[in-house]
Amino acid sequence: MTTEALVNQIKKKQSFLCIGLDVDLDKIPSYLLQEEDPIFAFNKAIIDATHHLCVSYKPNTAFYEAYGLKGWKSLEKTIKYLNKNYPEIYTIADAKRGDIGNTSTMYAKAFFEDLAFDSVTVAPYMGKDSVEPFLAFKNKHTIMLALTSNQGAFDFQTKDVEGKELYKMVLETSKSWVNSENLMYVVGATKAEYFKEIRSIVPNSFLLVPGVGAQGGNLQDVCKYGLNKDIGLLINSSRGIIYASKDAGFANSAAFKAEELQKQMAEILSK
Amino acid sequence: MTTEALVNQIKKKQSFLCIGLDVDLDKIPSYLLQEEDPIFAFNKAIIDATHHLCVSYKPNTAFYEAYGLKGWKSLEKTIKYLNKNYPEIYTIADAKRGDIGNTSTMYAKAFFEDLAFDSVTVAPYMGKDSVEPFLAFKNKHTIMLALTSNQGAFDFQTKDVEGKELYKMVLETSKSWVNSENLMYVVGATKAEYFKEIRSIVPNSFLLVPGVGAQGGNLQDVCKYGLNKDIGLLINSSRGIIYASKDAGFANSAAFKAEELQKQMAEILSK
Repeated sequence: MTTEALVNQIKKKQSFLCIGLDVDLDKIPSYLLQEEDPIFAFNKAIIDATHHLCVSYKPNTAFYEAYGLKGWKSLEKTIKYLNKNYPEIYTIADAKRGDIGNTSTMYAKAFFEDLAFDSVTVAPYMGKDSVEPFLAFKNKHTIMLALTSNQGAFDFQTKDVEGKELYKMVLETSKSWVNSENLMYVVGATKAEYFKEIRSIVPNSFLLVPGVGAQGGNLQDVCKYGLNKDIGLLINSSRGIIYASKDAGFANSAAFKAEELQKQMAEILSK
Repeated sequence: MTTEALVNQIKKKQSFLCIGLDVDLDKIPSYLLQEEDPIFAFNKAIIDATHHLCVSYKPNTAFYEAYGLKGWKSLEKTIKYLNKNYPEIYTIADAKRGDIGNTSTMYAKAFFEDLAFDSVTVAPYMGKDSVEPFLAFKNKHTIMLALTSNQGAFDFQTKDVEGKELYKMVLETSKSWVNSENLMYVVGATKAEYFKEIRSIVPNSFLLVPGVGAQGGNLQDVCKYGLNKDIGLLINSSRGIIYASKDAGFANSAAFKAEELQKQMAEILSK
């Protein structure tokens, strides 16, 4: 999907919500466990109930790999279902991959070609030649970790490197990589004040923002500093939406939570 | 597997060789493509021909994920075959994973429980709470990227952070993490002189060393600075061994290449 198509969808739906499909069998309604593929059954119900309120879904691959071959099959079924029934939806494989050049190309093929996601998250530690193989794919985005929302972000990401924090160096350096226009960045929402400085480095890039809701970030603050002329934000919520309730009405409860966020977003966009 | 069992195996086999199972269907003998599972058929032949010369196999997950569900099945068959037939072998899932706490636990379950690998590689960018969930698994090792062997290593890993290179800060910081005795580190072999300083930071840890062979590292130099009282090195070779030939004798050719390295290792250990 092109960035333009994503922006158009956001404007049409008045939403820049991304719903994280981090499905844990211990947390879904127990009656679903009788289904042949409980993870897919759960995802399908959530997607059918919320697709008009969000612009993107983001399965985190860890939650599928934990169930082995069965889990990978659920992931495949989920992305196929999305691409077939809701082709306007922007899909993100939250995989945080990254390896030496030829190996990163294999990961890119896995997520962009075999599974046909629109984007994949990657880790920056191995540098340019671990990310550029992803960037070579046309109309696909590579979403690189910059500043994450967990406590461990302060171990290395915010440390001073040659006069600036490491995550700022990561942002700046990546702008010189081949096809860097295909980059987006993960920026945690736990500290909204960071967005101001980040926007001075990457004014035009989309930022994928986890940590609104369960992890404590505030939507208003993030938007105040993070929005740009193309909106430029995808706000992710996972547990706060998909586990809104554990009974037979779980999909409606999820839609209710998604709508709360969508309405806040519509209001922000109207200003 | 315990570290002690790994060391015992190294001493017995007089080898600290790890063979990387990075299987690319474009590079294996073409007649294998008629097999029901060409990747597994290739791996089985390589393993049967080389298991007495090495102590470890390291499938890189990218090469399996690139083939989707089929690829994940080949990975599962490969690790099951190894655990059943060669239980003394130390297995490494080269996956370079890492995510926020509860998500890293899911990855750890995927590789330590579902697939039953002895170890998994992880990326350090997200810090302590992205790695400690892996370290909580008993008799399993977590192999963290420190200094990689690619050109991109110089983008961030060797940059000066508060007076020392980032990879050294990563090594030092990780020593304070809970269950850090379960850590090993990836250290690229392209610059053997780095090993001296790395050994001053982590004298007792095992180092997984890619880049000997195809990526240009030199075994003698690495051993000069990298060996410790428990040997403490796993030297990986992938393409140089598994793609030694493309004809019907490919497994024997691989064994021949593996034996060349094993003999050099035996000579080094005898000194």
